[in-house]
Amino acid sequence: MRQFVVLGHEAPTEPEFSLDDLAGGAGRIDVLCRCVNAAFLLSHGIREDVELFLVLRDSLTLRLVGSELRYLSPDERNVASLLRSGIEAKSEAIGMMEAESTPGIHVSKRGFEAVLDALNGTVIQLHEDGDPVAEADPPEDPAFVLSDHEAFTDAESDLLDARADTRVSLGPEALHADHAITIAHNALDTAGFRAY
Amino acid sequence: MRQFVVLGHEAPTEPEFSLDDLAGGAGRIDVLCRCVNAAFLLSHGIREDVELFLVLRDSLTLRLVGSELRYLSPDERNVASLLRSGIEAKSEAIGMMEAESTPGIHVSKRGFEAVLDALNGTVIQLHEDGDPVAEADPPEDPAFVLSDHEAFTDAESDLLDARADTRVSLGPEALHADHAITIAHNALDTAGFRAY
Repeated sequence: MRQFVVLGHEAPTEPEFSLDDLAGGAGRIDVLCRCVNAAFLLSHGIREDVELFLVLRDSLTLRLVGSELRYLSPDERNVASLLRSGIEAKSEAIGMMEAESTPGIHVSKRGFEAVLDALNGTVIQLHEDGDPVAEADPPEDPAFVLSDHEAFTDAESDLLDARADTRVSLGPEALHADHAITIAHNALDTAGFRAY
Repeated sequence: MRQFVVLGHEAPTEPEFSLDDLAGGAGRIDVLCRCVNAAFLLSHGIREDVELFLVLRDSLTLRLVGSELRYLSPDERNVASLLRSGIEAKSEAIGMMEAESTPGIHVSKRGFEAVLDALNGTVIQLHEDGDPVAEADPPEDPAFVLSDHEAFTDAESDLLDARADTRVSLGPEALHADHAITIAHNALDTAGFRAY
């Protein structure tokens, strides 16, 4: 299983946002939509062995499960409408208990720390000083933690520093979160091609 | 310079499409929008050393130049509105001569073959039987040729077979074009990290 966590610092926690203004009034949910695309979509299918946690303003979490997902098209508008349904279902989620909006999309009132507690693999911090991903031995069950267009806050960084099992660098450029997910997948996909 | 060519088989060549239906009525221009994002955007800037050719229905070509681009935001809707302006400017493009719609976006009435003629680097065909990208010696000026959500037609494949200087594989999975661009960039970015 590959897990990804993405923190949405300005992302909406209420479903009243317009699909026509994802990058503006909808709190940059466009960034999270692209992360969903990168996490799950192959040219002709879905990556079933992936779980993605979108943490919205440290108070609401959408958990997407590759093996259960339905109705997922790659475009931002489609993804945003699925995420909006997920946010809408929060009224059915009691505390840590999840509710499901559409197949494979679960919502709960969890913040970042509770999501870190829920990860069951090797927690990987992407960091410019980390080991180059091509040289790192890929763990069996990696869990990558990323931030949206904003940097981690100090409190988030402290939490992650305490929980991360390893630090990995994807390269010399500072990347968007969705590009980082694509590259992480590729590094794992091609690990068999390389000599370790 | 890194060049990318993406063929848009159903993409619009007329500007009368809705920004609310990019993945439907607008001929899957959403795919091309994501390719623009992947080709140019870093976390805090634009890749200036990139040129991207979007070939629309083998009859109209948008050429995007990283060092000149302005007004580019990462979301599909913003990119689509820039591409729409580019298509609109085609009335000012005479034959192979280009017209510019907004800074860095040039339109001409060129098809795939004329675009292949315009490439000035090492033409790279992405192919499952190619050399793994991590093992290939990165050329000075690579030009990657990709297709949108549809496969290359036989005629396009023949053209590309004849012009390609090398074949490269990005990994064992069949990828969306925009993900392939992200991975190609990363392979070039990190080439210095690896032992050849």
